[in-house]
Amino acid sequence: MAHSDITIEQLAAVGHDDADYLVSLIRSIPDFPEKGILFRDFMPVLADPRGLNILLRGLESTLPVPADSFDSIAGLEARGFLFGPAMAARLGKGFVSVRKAGKLPPPIVSESYSLEYGQASIEIESGAISPGERVLVIDDLVATGGTAHAAADIVKSCGGEVVGFSFVMELKGLDGIRALNGQPYSALVSMPA
Amino acid sequence: MAHSDITIEQLAAVGHDDADYLVSLIRSIPDFPEKGILFRDFMPVLADPRGLNILLRGLESTLPVPADSFDSIAGLEARGFLFGPAMAARLGKGFVSVRKAGKLPPPIVSESYSLEYGQASIEIESGAISPGERVLVIDDLVATGGTAHAAADIVKSCGGEVVGFSFVMELKGLDGIRALNGQPYSALVSMPA
Repeated sequence: MAHSDITIEQLAAVGHDDADYLVSLIRSIPDFPEKGILFRDFMPVLADPRGLNILLRGLESTLPVPADSFDSIAGLEARGFLFGPAMAARLGKGFVSVRKAGKLPPPIVSESYSLEYGQASIEIESGAISPGERVLVIDDLVATGGTAHAAADIVKSCGGEVVGFSFVMELKGLDGIRALNGQPYSALVSMPA
Repeated sequence: MAHSDITIEQLAAVGHDDADYLVSLIRSIPDFPEKGILFRDFMPVLADPRGLNILLRGLESTLPVPADSFDSIAGLEARGFLFGPAMAARLGKGFVSVRKAGKLPPPIVSESYSLEYGQASIEIESGAISPGERVLVIDDLVATGGTAHAAADIVKSCGGEVVGFSFVMELKGLDGIRALNGQPYSALVSMPA
């Protein structure tokens, strides 16, 4: 199969046919965004009504912690926006947007983090997270774990408590999970980096 | 009331208490992102479980065309991502991502459009829209209508047919609706620009 390098252990919770179907929609594009990177594209999953339904059911059935152990879902611009609010609505939670610098109106809480070359900043609106609020962090992909770690840091800076991480895809071999400091996490599908 | 400049005609479809509640969550921030602009912030709506539920119910109950008259929903990065897929999932449709230039892997379809100063480009993955596919365009805000018009153009460039536009907020007085060329549209709430 064209997608034979994708592992679907957790996704099997939605049933084998649906798992196969979802994985068949993920495209692998060599040398994007730069040479040597194999880009995994899940946009076609969203564009397909059955794929979108399987994705949301899959995320719900593989939550790393029980749904009643968190109050809200935080998701990262821009791909985390694609399914974070949909998951929040399914579960009766609120959705907190973690945006790139300069997009949110004041007052905001800001957090800088290191990229391979240089630094980036992410922001949350002050007051979007209440003191002690229990937050599940959601994102499309965990690779080195840098972004997820930064998201967890900014949730804590807001006074929130991170209870776990939910990803669609996990790139194996980049040690990204170590950056999550042993906190509960799930990833629907896994593939080599 | 602090939000007395916000009109909720269409939103009344969800019931008056819920309409009031949703509008009470929209923040108005003067001089953001630049002096003279009154920024309308609906992030607190998403962060509130009841607000998010009202928002999605409101969008569903005010669709500008019947749900069976379109096949998919197209939404614009980044704020259109926040509720486009959630709406698509509710309605059993697919979601097509319209992204800023350079984010989507090849092959892509690209469309340039004019901003107040200069130009911008948006992109859709080739094949994300089938020939003749009927598409509802969704976005958070219609102001001058430039972005919505560009989104409609790129859907047509992909061979799709735009059946209407669904917005959360409409800024009155900027003639934005004229840019939609008389096509069906809805906006949950309206406010002065």
